[in-house]
Amino acid sequence: MPVFERHEYLARIDKVKTRMAAAGIDTLLAADPANMNYLTGYDGWSFYTPQVAVVSAALAEPVVIVRLMDANGAKVTTFLDHGNIVGYPDRYVQSTERHPMDFIAEEIERRGLGRGVIGLEMDAYYFTAAAVGALTRGLPNARFKDATALVNWVRVVKSPRELQYMSEAARIVEKVMATAFEAIRPGVRQCDAAALIYKAEIEGTPEFGGDYTAFVPMLPTGIGTSTPHLTWSDRPFVAGEATILELAACRHRYHCPMARTMFLGSPPPRLADTAAAVVEGLNAALEAARPGVTAEEVEAAWRRAIAKSGLTKESRIGYSVGLNYPPDWGEHTLSLRPGDRTVLQADMTLHCIPGIWMDDWGFEVSECFRVTPSGGEPFARVPQALYLKG
Amino acid sequence: MPVFERHEYLARIDKVKTRMAAAGIDTLLAADPANMNYLTGYDGWSFYTPQVAVVSAALAEPVVIVRLMDANGAKVTTFLDHGNIVGYPDRYVQSTERHPMDFIAEEIERRGLGRGVIGLEMDAYYFTAAAVGALTRGLPNARFKDATALVNWVRVVKSPRELQYMSEAARIVEKVMATAFEAIRPGVRQCDAAALIYKAEIEGTPEFGGDYTAFVPMLPTGIGTSTPHLTWSDRPFVAGEATILELAACRHRYHCPMARTMFLGSPPPRLADTAAAVVEGLNAALEAARPGVTAEEVEAAWRRAIAKSGLTKESRIGYSVGLNYPPDWGEHTLSLRPGDRTVLQADMTLHCIPGIWMDDWGFEVSECFRVTPSGGEPFARVPQALYLKG
Repeated sequence: MPVFERHEYLARIDKVKTRMAAAGIDTLLAADPANMNYLTGYDGWSFYTPQVAVVSAALAEPVVIVRLMDANGAKVTTFLDHGNIVGYPDRYVQSTERHPMDFIAEEIERRGLGRGVIGLEMDAYYFTAAAVGALTRGLPNARFKDATALVNWVRVVKSPRELQYMSEAARIVEKVMATAFEAIRPGVRQCDAAALIYKAEIEGTPEFGGDYTAFVPMLPTGIGTSTPHLTWSDRPFVAGEATILELAACRHRYHCPMARTMFLGSPPPRLADTAAAVVEGLNAALEAARPGVTAEEVEAAWRRAIAKSGLTKESRIGYSVGLNYPPDWGEHTLSLRPGDRTVLQADMTLHCIPGIWMDDWGFEVSECFRVTPSGGEPFARVPQALYLKG
Repeated sequence: MPVFERHEYLARIDKVKTRMAAAGIDTLLAADPANMNYLTGYDGWSFYTPQVAVVSAALAEPVVIVRLMDANGAKVTTFLDHGNIVGYPDRYVQSTERHPMDFIAEEIERRGLGRGVIGLEMDAYYFTAAAVGALTRGLPNARFKDATALVNWVRVVKSPRELQYMSEAARIVEKVMATAFEAIRPGVRQCDAAALIYKAEIEGTPEFGGDYTAFVPMLPTGIGTSTPHLTWSDRPFVAGEATILELAACRHRYHCPMARTMFLGSPPPRLADTAAAVVEGLNAALEAARPGVTAEEVEAAWRRAIAKSGLTKESRIGYSVGLNYPPDWGEHTLSLRPGDRTVLQADMTLHCIPGIWMDDWGFEVSECFRVTPSGGEPFARVPQALYLKG
């Protein structure tokens, strides 16, 4: 049932243990659901209750601790020996008297891992301040160290199988974007277009289905294009307005995101001009994205290309992407922006999305790409130009 | 654009201020996206970066602090004066050098709110230990107090408009469940059924569209029914197996969840017997759910009803439900379980879901209901029995 071979999980765990040793961490509690999946295969929508994968130099394979009703889910989806899957009783769930991390601390103590240095993902989604409080109280003999993104940094370079899943997601996203271009027209309710987009994401292709994406489909329209993260309403699309499509497809939790912009009618010159300049800048960034180049140098290539257009952009133009769960397909490691001196390596995968948001309009175009010696190679093939209709 | 009248938001804020005063809290930082929405109307998929709504006795209306690119989204969706919408620069986003809460702490200080007691939602999703660390370092003149679920407890009793949105979600979920019963048959890929379910959730009815739900559709099948939170694969449904449908619909972020179980073929007696007993127990719980009764008394009514069947259930049978964002439509307040002595009030809304999970099979049936003097009144009308097909 796990979607990678056992040896691939073991290789990942080895890399994490090497980083742990370098950071002086004896035992790591990975609470980020993407990190739990990466290290064990665990895949379930159970991250709304606290859970961890425990990695320790003293353990051959991780121990997964989840809510009791989810332990069977871990048996079905992970490569782990069932002795390494532990469920906590339901009385810990959303209780005002006890925290699931009380139980998890006891289990860690019981397994002899309550001493030495324990690494915690202090800035991971779903791993709250209360969780950290319960762990530190429950493990008085341990010292704690911030291990935010330690596993994430191992995830940045993709294996052949991971690249395959992202390519499969790309085949799906090509269909998704075609569905969106077809569905959106004046008078159609936004929710009806979003429904067809969702359907296309999940049904996938005849060869493989799609998984849920870490962001829901974003299709801000009209004045909504001035900001990137509004979701649909049941108002209709209107002739003479733009719609930004920030969509994706997902295969075994690996994403291929894609943004495009469409306009119903004849676009105002400022939008058409912006589109041309941003597409040129995007491709300049892709051209620059080779092994040995830094993240900030990729951003600088974009910046040089758009300089003559008069456009400026304060926010980052991209980030590492791949395996993830809601609410974010980004990996929280490198970003394409000034000051990020991360050196690109072959088979890193990024989402370059130089969105432009003005006071009452905006434009987005993006590519999810793989770093290769000949530049960033997009996973999906969809024309980059402003899509005009009607 | 906000989906409630201004006076409804102001009434909510007043209730929160009353609770704050009782708890000795001068300023509350609400980071839970559902609480931010409840207090201001803010609705965007931006909770993957830190953000807060600030409520203070010293302020007539809340201040919302979000990422700069999302500030326009707050202008579009909230009732707030634009002077109370603040965006932080992108250099704070997913940086290893600075945290968005550094900026937020400065903004709170700048507005003269950096003294006295500040309440923090220590166990809210998306509000990490690192966020708390940055706030406490950045506000050295404040004292901090745990305010987890303070706003959530105000949310438990619903207004007429909130009940209307949940009723609209119920109209959608009736269509969603019919779509699922129709789509699932032997040989159909799970992803294709999930795609049609998603489409039905979002397209809604001709009168109103649906919103994204806080859980994705769950449709564990075969051995997967032994655990509740696995999502679909691209394997086909198989004759002679059960599928659990834990679905929902959402309207303006208000949910009506619903679980049903279907079987392709003639069900084994143990499943049919369990279904009959659980349906009886569910209705005993609904019958008991009246104002003045405690949450644990509702669970006891279920427990008495199923005693003769020999079934037992360790986990809670329900929880408060309504406005929410991924990953959970539950409100994290009362639960229907032993020890919860919360007294039910009219117009509380709960999801009673007494799922039974055995080693290799399971059964679920649920109702989302409103507490009324004549018992729990389900929002949706879908037969509760095991759904048999083919």
